[in-house]
Amino acid sequence: MNQFKLTLLVALLSSLAIGQQKSSHQSVIEYVNPFIGTSNYGTTNPGAIAPRGMLSISPFNVAFDASGREIPLEKDSQWLSTPYVHENEFLTGFTHVNLSGVGCPDLGVIISMPTTGEIKTNHLDYGSAYENEKAEPGYYSVDLKKYGIKTEVTATQRAGMSRFYFPAGTSNVLLNLGLGLTNEQGAMLKFVSPTEVEGLRMVGSFCYNSEEKAYPVYFVAKVSKEPQRRGIWKKHQFYEGLEAQWMGYNGETRMKENFSRAVVGDSIGGYFSYNFKQPTVVELKVGISYVSIENARENLEKEIGEKNFTQVKMMTQRAWEKQLSAVEIESDDENKKKIFYSGLYHASIHPNIFHDFNGDYVKSNGEIGHTEGERYTVFSLWDTYRNYHQLFSLLYPKQQMQMVNSILSIYDESGWLPKWELNSTETFTMVGDPAAIVLADTYLRGLTQFDAEKAFTAMKKSAETLEDNPLRPGIKEYLEKGYLSVDGGVSGPVSTTQEYNIADFAIGQMAEALGYAEEAKKYKKQSLSYRNLFDKEFNLLRPKHANGNWYSPFDPDKGANFEKNVGYIEGNAWQYAFMVPHDMRGLIQLMGGEKKFVKQLNEIFNNQKFDMANEPDIAYPYLFNYVKGEEWRTQKKVDELLQKYYKNKPDGLPGNDDTGVMSAWMMYGMLGFYPVAPAQPIYTFTSPKFDKVTLNLDTDFHPNGKIEILSNASEGGKYIQQIWVDGKVYKSYFITDRVLKNARQIRFELGENPKK
Amino acid sequence: MNQFKLTLLVALLSSLAIGQQKSSHQSVIEYVNPFIGTSNYGTTNPGAIAPRGMLSISPFNVAFDASGREIPLEKDSQWLSTPYVHENEFLTGFTHVNLSGVGCPDLGVIISMPTTGEIKTNHLDYGSAYENEKAEPGYYSVDLKKYGIKTEVTATQRAGMSRFYFPAGTSNVLLNLGLGLTNEQGAMLKFVSPTEVEGLRMVGSFCYNSEEKAYPVYFVAKVSKEPQRRGIWKKHQFYEGLEAQWMGYNGETRMKENFSRAVVGDSIGGYFSYNFKQPTVVELKVGISYVSIENARENLEKEIGEKNFTQVKMMTQRAWEKQLSAVEIESDDENKKKIFYSGLYHASIHPNIFHDFNGDYVKSNGEIGHTEGERYTVFSLWDTYRNYHQLFSLLYPKQQMQMVNSILSIYDESGWLPKWELNSTETFTMVGDPAAIVLADTYLRGLTQFDAEKAFTAMKKSAETLEDNPLRPGIKEYLEKGYLSVDGGVSGPVSTTQEYNIADFAIGQMAEALGYAEEAKKYKKQSLSYRNLFDKEFNLLRPKHANGNWYSPFDPDKGANFEKNVGYIEGNAWQYAFMVPHDMRGLIQLMGGEKKFVKQLNEIFNNQKFDMANEPDIAYPYLFNYVKGEEWRTQKKVDELLQKYYKNKPDGLPGNDDTGVMSAWMMYGMLGFYPVAPAQPIYTFTSPKFDKVTLNLDTDFHPNGKIEILSNASEGGKYIQQIWVDGKVYKSYFITDRVLKNARQIRFELGENPKK
Repeated sequence: MNQFKLTLLVALLSSLAIGQQKSSHQSVIEYVNPFIGTSNYGTTNPGAIAPRGMLSISPFNVAFDASGREIPLEKDSQWLSTPYVHENEFLTGFTHVNLSGVGCPDLGVIISMPTTGEIKTNHLDYGSAYENEKAEPGYYSVDLKKYGIKTEVTATQRAGMSRFYFPAGTSNVLLNLGLGLTNEQGAMLKFVSPTEVEGLRMVGSFCYNSEEKAYPVYFVAKVSKEPQRRGIWKKHQFYEGLEAQWMGYNGETRMKENFSRAVVGDSIGGYFSYNFKQPTVVELKVGISYVSIENARENLEKEIGEKNFTQVKMMTQRAWEKQLSAVEIESDDENKKKIFYSGLYHASIHPNIFHDFNGDYVKSNGEIGHTEGERYTVFSLWDTYRNYHQLFSLLYPKQQMQMVNSILSIYDESGWLPKWELNSTETFTMVGDPAAIVLADTYLRGLTQFDAEKAFTAMKKSAETLEDNPLRPGIKEYLEKGYLSVDGGVSGPVSTTQEYNIADFAIGQMAEALGYAEEAKKYKKQSLSYRNLFDKEFNLLRPKHANGNWYSPFDPDKGANFEKNVGYIEGNAWQYAFMVPHDMRGLIQLMGGEKKFVKQLNEIFNNQKFDMANEPDIAYPYLFNYVKGEEWRTQKKVDELLQKYYKNKPDGLPGNDDTGVMSAWMMYGMLGFYPVAPAQPIYTFTSPKFDKVTLNLDTDFHPNGKIEILSNASEGGKYIQQIWVDGKVYKSYFITDRVLKNARQIRFELGENPKK
Repeated sequence: MNQFKLTLLVALLSSLAIGQQKSSHQSVIEYVNPFIGTSNYGTTNPGAIAPRGMLSISPFNVAFDASGREIPLEKDSQWLSTPYVHENEFLTGFTHVNLSGVGCPDLGVIISMPTTGEIKTNHLDYGSAYENEKAEPGYYSVDLKKYGIKTEVTATQRAGMSRFYFPAGTSNVLLNLGLGLTNEQGAMLKFVSPTEVEGLRMVGSFCYNSEEKAYPVYFVAKVSKEPQRRGIWKKHQFYEGLEAQWMGYNGETRMKENFSRAVVGDSIGGYFSYNFKQPTVVELKVGISYVSIENARENLEKEIGEKNFTQVKMMTQRAWEKQLSAVEIESDDENKKKIFYSGLYHASIHPNIFHDFNGDYVKSNGEIGHTEGERYTVFSLWDTYRNYHQLFSLLYPKQQMQMVNSILSIYDESGWLPKWELNSTETFTMVGDPAAIVLADTYLRGLTQFDAEKAFTAMKKSAETLEDNPLRPGIKEYLEKGYLSVDGGVSGPVSTTQEYNIADFAIGQMAEALGYAEEAKKYKKQSLSYRNLFDKEFNLLRPKHANGNWYSPFDPDKGANFEKNVGYIEGNAWQYAFMVPHDMRGLIQLMGGEKKFVKQLNEIFNNQKFDMANEPDIAYPYLFNYVKGEEWRTQKKVDELLQKYYKNKPDGLPGNDDTGVMSAWMMYGMLGFYPVAPAQPIYTFTSPKFDKVTLNLDTDFHPNGKIEILSNASEGGKYIQQIWVDGKVYKSYFITDRVLKNARQIRFELGENPKK
């Protein structure tokens, strides 16, 4: 049986399988609404992607004539970090590499666009209004009003496929390599046959950092029908000087019809042009690679090859079905289910694979490496150490292990653990030393199948290297004084001290687990040094000078909404006040006891000082659980926040999804537990939102297999009255990872009244 | 014996051979002064090149801060078409692909530059004054004053080698892919090892024509020592929009230290940086190809490989010795010998080979082809049909045959004969249909080893295709009326009519030779249609309207010095008046007989209407030979022009060398004969300038082997008194190609007085 027939058979069988599944219960992927997060700066996009895919095909609608508009959601008119915004109305193509839920513009390149009539190369000229958008996991479609062209797209992990339904007449498939979400410039394009091009596009400069590390993404693109005309366009920079008067195209676009040699430049593109006697479908297949054109071609061949659109879509949707089925929800609240599964979908996009089908990938030092397993990239660790990896340790331990091993490979290759790693470049976005926390947390949750000694060595390197330490700027002062001063040149010295503390705690935890008692003691002691910054006067952490004097005047409210302030990164004193998850008992003491602690916490929520859209304070709603009798406040607050910020609508995320961290927060809130203290294998409870949830665990890692979470949530009660674990009343609002994973059933009795 | 040892042995033996040769008589290459033509817009350069090489290494001194200078010889401040001008003083590197003696800017890219100290990427910052220039065929050296670096360069046909003599301290080898003589932009660069880069650079737009056909030249570059630091720089276009405020390098140059992935962009470069404890030589080897990086690497490996600088230089100088030894001169006038051999050197640069070592080349349709023989490019046929190919048919028949076969391949590939072909792009520079003339002329001189029937078909195609004829615009009107009118939209309608006439005559000649009597008659008749434009009133050709009326007012002087005028291309009515080389008898009749003909000719010379620097009138000094008793004027005039315009100095050419045509004119003048009528295998005599010249003919084509040209020129007489061919008095001032080639000796008796 040849490969093609086998593929067909597999597709047929799987189609039957899905059919059967449907007859018994609805497909999980139907609960995904990819439009959630496409407004309110959620920065997700509704494009087609496979689980943790390296390629995705997103509609690109953030490039238009923004002149005259007050606050346009246009890519260059503000700090806009997504290829698609739901409010926008002008589509200029489909991008083939994209980031989802990140706060900085990058990628958003290799743009295809179907048009009719004369070939236009400027997106402002060829762009179109659109309607009838549809999005499912692995599928997106839209109608271009200007041209009457319906477009459908689908994708595998490293390749994508588009179907353009052209009307009769002149039609074109454009491949614009000039335009992009990234601010990087430069591309290469070459026709290798009338129906196939190959090339590369420069990307990089995430968060405007490391612009000198900008790098190429390679691609191969094939159309299904031989065009009547084809070519490459190139827009030239304006040439200065007297001589320029003879240049026919100075600063303008040249059409290189039928050109079959390579073309490079800052602003180029290609076109395939047709004259159709009747309406005709043209398919475009694109493979990408960060290693080489050859690998891009192989990725396309191996993942799509001769498969048709329906087969590719079905294959990818089966993969999504498998990924999302880790959680089974029985509930009549369709809306909540959609919110939940859309969150699980968004959290399954990054980190994404970075290696080619053959195992090649670009190492962190820029060399070409080879991996037998999965090599992941897009590690937004300042965000994800807080709850994301905990979720994947529980639900997808194999993926989490591969992420941990990828983190260790980055250390092997670059000499340092990652901080905010993107496509093997360290972008140094945000602060702290978060990889250590992820490594320790994963290990303590029983996922120990990695080189823990190496991980420990790596963690200590950033904690102890005094000179040229890219991960912990200010390390000397931190170790000497226990805090970073406002005079040391490190931005956000209070925040950064807290982050180093949390990382040090994680290292201490890891040391303890590995039997290094002395080091455990040392690091745990070090992890409490934030206390030096606690100011009784405000009952808050406060910036301090190197000489030990407090920074004055001090306004704890300053710095909200990303306003810059002296002590803190992306937040103010209130939003960082409780960010010592490893020392809540100590903080309660510092604040003068439980009462004052709760008072301060309430101060935050009652006076709009809480920011749901950013990470430092997202665990705060759960901190009431640290005070006996106040747990109902956690339940109330989490419920309020879920209702206020999470919706089955484009603006259904509180803000940037932060590669799934905001979605993870929502999912925990709906499930009824939260990993409140990174690098401590514990959860704390809140009231669940579904009557029955089954967590299908991977028995290779968690032998228990399934955990049922039952409640009477549908009756409307928000407050926990009682918790049973495996039928026994459970007295605490905290539970260890081990106990939770070994439980077969956790049952909540909810009621209308708080249990104070 | 391995390859390396064999190479050494060959080099050693050849070194001995040259040594022996030197002991008997001085090496011919010592008579070449590559600086001739580097001023006065000669547009030659003193760089290192092998005979008909695809690569050359030229100093690049035409990019500098020209602000404030009145008429700077700066590349962008005027129509400047050479990488090097002798008057300039600021060197910004060494270009690896160059054109010599052409009138439009192109190529002049892949720029290397040695510097010391901090790496600077802007040529205005890193450029340097220089001194101690030395140039020989295949060799150039210069000292950079700013850095105290001596540089030597040499080249094979497809590869080049530079030696940089660095002082102790920080030194750098820059590879600037942003700067160039061409106005094209765009390059790719990638480190494949610490000592090797590969990439491409876009070139094209010769004469600002066919900008949309701009194409890549690929290269591989290797340094001989591993650098301490290396990287790529990229200058970005200025990014507009609010977002640009966050970009650290907006519009500026980024240094990508140690970057090992590909980089593309409009303005990029690479660097190798060293810290030397003592003065150290670094060698840079560069291979190029128009086909691929792989071929560039193979070209470098096969032509240079592990050879050292001296070996490469010696190999190339041997090739030059062989090429230039076709003419042996015995004369004490060292200066004249230098002028002569420098002309032969300059005429042996273009057309140059275009195929890779393995036979691959880019076909005229852009596809990759393969050739077993030589594939030539750079056909400036409007210039070269007049005298250049005649010289090579005589002295280098094998090269001429390969040129003819290349011309026919271009026809096969593109469907049309070339007009001004450059690297497989037709630039459509100048007018007329010159390839037909070259083909017929070559055939009639007995070089018949090409597909003459195909050539004839190709010639007729451009002469007879009425629609979409890229070679003969206005063909319909030309055939209907016998001339191009000023109303037909064809520029220079009189000139173009004349050019078509000459081409038609050539086709008629070819038809006759192939036995097509009817077509011979038709085309020869057609070739006389210029007579429709002869105006008795002026005794000159005059522009005419479509309705048959003369164009008025008519000023025959208008249009000199490239001033635009109505009837003529690059000239005025006087400069075109006699450009009917195939019908001098007819013209004499039209002008009213020999007396009036001579009067008009004298009018041109006596009133400064003759332009030595452009092709249409360059045969005029020889036209006195058509009138019995007036031949002395030819001898006088040619002698005067040689003395006035040809010197052993940078301004020693009358102007643009036109890929060797001006040099060919000089060589004929010094040898004593001129191919006065293209497509007629004849020469006409003038007084030679040397006592003894031996033409060493290729016996594969011309069995006679050697022709001696003897005279008493050294005695100072300028006027021919008597001519002997093989000892017999020769009565005519014309001689057929056959008689000349079969002669063993032609002897001139010269005297002080004209023989009237």
